Amino acid sequence: MPTVKLVAEDHPDPIVREVFADIKATKKIDFIPDIWRALATHPEHLRLCWTRLKAIMQPGKVDLLVKEIVALAVSVTNSCRYCVNSHTAAAQKLGLSQEGLGEVLAVVGLFNQMNKLADGYQVEPDVLPGDWVQ
Amino acid sequence: MPTVKLVAEDHPDPIVREVFADIKATKKIDFIPDIWRALATHPEHLRLCWTRLKAIMQPGKVDLLVKEIVALAVSVTNSCRYCVNSHTAAAQKLGLSQEGLGEVLAVVGLFNQMNKLADGYQVEPDVLPGDWVQ
Amino acid sequence: MPTVKLVAEDHPDPIVREVFADIKATKKIDFIPDIWRALATHPEHLRLCWTRLKAIMQPGKVDLLVKEIVALAVSVTNSCRYCVNSHTAAAQKLGLSQEGLGEVLAVVGLFNQMNKLADGYQVEPDVLPGDWVQ
Amino acid sequence: MPTVKLVAEDHPDPIVREVFADIKATKKIDFIPDIWRALATHPEHLRLCWTRLKAIMQPGKVDLLVKEIVALAVSVTNSCRYCVNSHTAAAQKLGLSQEGLGEVLAVVGLFNQMNKLADGYQVEPDVLPGDWVQ
Amino acid sequence: MPTVKLVAEDHPDPIVREVFADIKATKKIDFIPDIWRALATHPEHLRLCWTRLKAIMQPGKVDLLVKEIVALAVSVTNSCRYCVNSHTAAAQKLGLSQEGLGEVLAVVGLFNQMNKLADGYQVEPDVLPGDWVQ
Amino acid sequence: MPTVKLVAEDHPDPIVREVFADIKATKKIDFIPDIWRALATHPEHLRLCWTRLKAIMQPGKVDLLVKEIVALAVSVTNSCRYCVNSHTAAAQKLGLSQEGLGEVLAVVGLFNQMNKLADGYQVEPDVLPGDWVQ
Repeated sequence: MPTVKLVAEDHPDPIVREVFADIKATKKIDFIPDIWRALATHPEHLRLCWTRLKAIMQPGKVDLLVKEIVALAVSVTNSCRYCVNSHTAAAQKLGLSQEGLGEVLAVVGLFNQMNKLADGYQVEPDVLPGDWVQ
Repeated sequence: MPTVKLVAEDHPDPIVREVFADIKATKKIDFIPDIWRALATHPEHLRLCWTRLKAIMQPGKVDLLVKEIVALAVSVTNSCRYCVNSHTAAAQKLGLSQEGLGEVLAVVGLFNQMNKLADGYQVEPDVLPGDWVQ
Repeated sequence: MPTVKLVAEDHPDPIVREVFADIKATKKIDFIPDIWRALATHPEHLRLCWTRLKAIMQPGKVDLLVKEIVALAVSVTNSCRYCVNSHTAAAQKLGLSQEGLGEVLAVVGLFNQMNKLADGYQVEPDVLPGDWVQ
Repeated sequence: MPTVKLVAEDHPDPIVREVFADIKATKKIDFIPDIWRALATHPEHLRLCWTRLKAIMQPGKVDLLVKEIVALAVSVTNSCRYCVNSHTAAAQKLGLSQEGLGEVLAVVGLFNQMNKLADGYQVEPDVLPGDWVQ
Repeated sequence: MPTVKLVAEDHPDPIVREVFADIKATKKIDFIPDIWRALATHPEHLRLCWTRLKAIMQPGKVDLLVKEIVALAVSVTNSCRYCVNSHTAAAQKLGLSQEGLGEVLAVVGLFNQMNKLADGYQVEPDVLPGDWVQ
Repeated sequence: MPTVKLVAEDHPDPIVREVFADIKATKKIDFIPDIWRALATHPEHLRLCWTRLKAIMQPGKVDLLVKEIVALAVSVTNSCRYCVNSHTAAAQKLGLSQEGLGEVLAVVGLFNQMNKLADGYQVEPDVLPGDWVQ
């Protein structure tokens, strides 16, 4: 159960109204997911979070499905229930198949294992990136 | 410093020889990264790890660069120094630019934040994936 | 569901009785929170945990509300459901407002992000504490 | 070693120049900490990170030293070397004594333990926050 | 709720059938735990996971109960609900008593605390393993 | 580098002297590991940590080598460099062979993977412990 009372979708605070409207328009959805209703208990923070997320989660050098897959990989590694569900749904909507999900989770599982083996044996970095072409 | 003596590349154990040769051939490299030399202190485990990694890290529904990006996202979230370095290098080799790296890390940072906000307010899952088309 | 049967509040074990009585007196509550009832399945460990917590969670150089806020920040970062709830409640009781909670979680979210960016780019420590005045 | 070439303090990019100048002015320092020089490899992301951090890390309902202590608690729980050092230094500058640091780390250690005991016994939330006074 | 439809125990895929039969025979159980039914949505990955687990989870230099205890310690540290439950049950079946469970969780809690104190004060490794006798 | 000046072994504070002497006697070593010298900057906290560790790290239902193995599993999962080194050394001293270490780390790696797969597919607990025989 949330530790705060979720803010109603029609809350009169002008920042909340503006952000909620932008969430619906940007995500093409007709309701406000609960994470944003919880964040709206502190409108300034809601705005900071939403505008940053909106800026980062648009296609660039890396396309949107890959960004959702990264979001899912992070959420699984952090064991965040809310986020695993919402990013699985978002990646599905963008075209990830069940087999693709299996591949992504296989990679996530594999490197959670390999990370711990590298740390378990205290191996020092030996394969370093080279110079980046700008 | 590793907690075990890294196994020499020309170690006579037949399992080690076979896996080391396959690592070089598969990755098209002419040396054995230290993580595999540490794992080789237990040859059976070395083989289990390498054959699984080889099976998972090939192109499928998800291409190889995306898999390396997922590996990087997991390694950053786990703060594994060895793995952050090696997966940054691997993604670079597969074509990730510095700007692309910036985008990937932006997404990793963003959802490490959002994961904790969802858990911090104890928001329950509300956006669930639908049925999967096989 | 707990993996052990929670110990009843009136359990006859003398260590359990003594610790439970002290928990009620110290926290000014009239029931035993479930974490202590679970720990009571191993009375010696219950006592070790409670006496340490009691020693640390009193005002000192850092006041009690700040200590509860730190406990909340740790619990959120670890995604511990039980503890996020109980430390949010405890900080609320000590006077944290909903806006204050929003600020605390904003800081928790922000540095979960910044931590991963520092590790993601493998930045080495450059701003170090100076000598401490005793 | 950072995985990107740190951006020079006098880099000509206008966003980088503006953010670097604001970092120096806001933090009253005469150099740019390496985390910002790494982030500057992606100027838009640098700006997003800095403007959010600046907005959050100012006194509000929670004062600045408490916010730095929360940042330290998060960084310790995430084991981020760069951030543990810089937030210890920042809290010291704002007046935290060595004894105060000892108290903060005692609380951080204690609840890393208690979090795992609650999860280890799978205890369900029983102490919930009440209604918040706005 | 799982994010995929759990695969039925009598699913016709030959890899799934073979693995499910081996799980029942090896673990001496007459149903398939849900984790394997979820993994079966990607049969090749199911087989990789099961064959590796089967190879690692047999008695060797370290006996099976100790391996289950290690699995539990990892699962608690990662706060994985499913796994805490199943490894507690498995260790119980192999003879761990309630008092033994209390001791294991005491050690898990203690070193989650000590790990953070070592990182919180940024102490460098000073007690290193010596040479290993093969 | 530690964020505090490590306390000298011959520090005159009576609590520090007493704890340091007990550490040497109990562990049968002739120097004080750095973690205790860091904790000694807050003598009361040093004493709390040491007396709890001493009480927990003695043979009981679970023997000492198993407790060290659990400490190592936790430290690897938390990626704590100081603690991975010291618990590997301690387990080695108590008789863990290099092959045994390989088995332990194999289990740690495996369940770091399986934990994330269970959370990645959001599988609910289905195998629960039964009643405990006291």
